[in-house]
Amino acid sequence: MFKAAIYVNYKPSVLDPKAEAIKTALTRMDYHNVTDVVFGKYFEIVLDAADAETARTQVDHICDELLANVNMETYRFDLTEVSGVHA
Amino acid sequence: MFKAAIYVNYKPSVLDPKAEAIKTALTRMDYHNVTDVVFGKYFEIVLDAADAETARTQVDHICDELLANVNMETYRFDLTEVSGVHA
Repeated sequence: MFKAAIYVNYKPSVLDPKAEAIKTALTRMDYHNVTDVVFGKYFEIVLDAADAETARTQVDHICDELLANVNMETYRFDLTEVSGVHA
Repeated sequence: MFKAAIYVNYKPSVLDPKAEAIKTALTRMDYHNVTDVVFGKYFEIVLDAADAETARTQVDHICDELLANVNMETYRFDLTEVSGVHA
């Protein structure tokens, strides 16, 4: 069993209105020392695969086909082997 | 400067309809080997603080007061020192 921790973010060239809203809210709350905010999505997927390479290829497909809008977003993931433990 | 990578998830007792929808979609796409899906939010915040302890306390406050709905969600974060680099 493998667990993939997947991070999906807007590409740097795409304006992220949610991150901007958070930054504005933090300033209003007097957190003036916050200089940058990134907002994204986080997924954990547990899957059964013969080896890490197979799991990696499949997670790549799942991101491209379902989890990320590859036009506007980028993704990265970390894969770890787990022993039948669910996320 | 410190960078906090913050993960916000539903508490295990709260049904996550988005995670369920992703699991259903994956089954429909013939990924039958996916056994578990967790969906959450991911934030990166860069902030200026005197030391790690101060930064940690402030990130805790920001999560409690803004980023997480502590009734339904839990959060965790990793703090790393960065040298004036923006996220």
